[in-house]
Amino acid sequence: MGADQCRVSAEKQRVGHLATCSSSMQPHIVPVTFAFRNGSIVIGIDEKPKSTTKLKRLRNILENPRVSLMWDEYDEDWTKLWWVRGDGVGLIIESGLVWEAAWAALNAKYLQYQGSRHEGPCMSVEIDSWSGWSYS
Amino acid sequence: MGADQCRVSAEKQRVGHLATCSSSMQPHIVPVTFAFRNGSIVIGIDEKPKSTTKLKRLRNILENPRVSLMWDEYDEDWTKLWWVRGDGVGLIIESGLVWEAAWAALNAKYLQYQGSRHEGPCMSVEIDSWSGWSYS
Repeated sequence: MGADQCRVSAEKQRVGHLATCSSSMQPHIVPVTFAFRNGSIVIGIDEKPKSTTKLKRLRNILENPRVSLMWDEYDEDWTKLWWVRGDGVGLIIESGLVWEAAWAALNAKYLQYQGSRHEGPCMSVEIDSWSGWSYS
Repeated sequence: MGADQCRVSAEKQRVGHLATCSSSMQPHIVPVTFAFRNGSIVIGIDEKPKSTTKLKRLRNILENPRVSLMWDEYDEDWTKLWWVRGDGVGLIIESGLVWEAAWAALNAKYLQYQGSRHEGPCMSVEIDSWSGWSYS
């Protein structure tokens, strides 16, 4: 799969998985909501600001900005299996116009956010390497 | 969620996500088949032995044995969301009785492996820290 095809497949998805790694080399993984915006991927951290300072994925990114994002869907028919991975750099955004635009993109994609007042930070990821696989 | 509840929820699943991290601090993530066996989690690497020496997840584990495994299911009804994570240490097993027993456990769980002649290595993961979350 070429990078463009990977990007198109990822953008259609509703959930992704984010891996980060602390300075002590412990990987960490979490499911994430996300939206594509201006060539970056924005990820919402839907928690109150005070609790987010404790979130492992945020501490890890401050220690080591390298991240990996994975999109895939499991099916018992293994001929339907596929995955797309994007490796890149994550940045935490706590306020300002970019923060507002990121949450606006997430709100537009996920009706479930309707009525929520976001206070938590966003993460913006720039992918520098795409890879993809499908059974067929 | 306590560790026992995490373990029970994870064991029921058909797919998990594995995160590893290279010595250069690049996280890596991949969907995996798995089976619980004698308190460990075995993961099949369903590739020919020669190609597996190139697999990033295997090279990463040789460089840094710390891994993170995640199980979750996405649902548009976010009140149904949950995840379970197990952090631990991964070991590559290339042959021998433990390798045979690991593939036997995977074959027993996944009918899709029927008729396959496994040649690739397995990974065995010892989880030392469980965590879990559910919306409700």
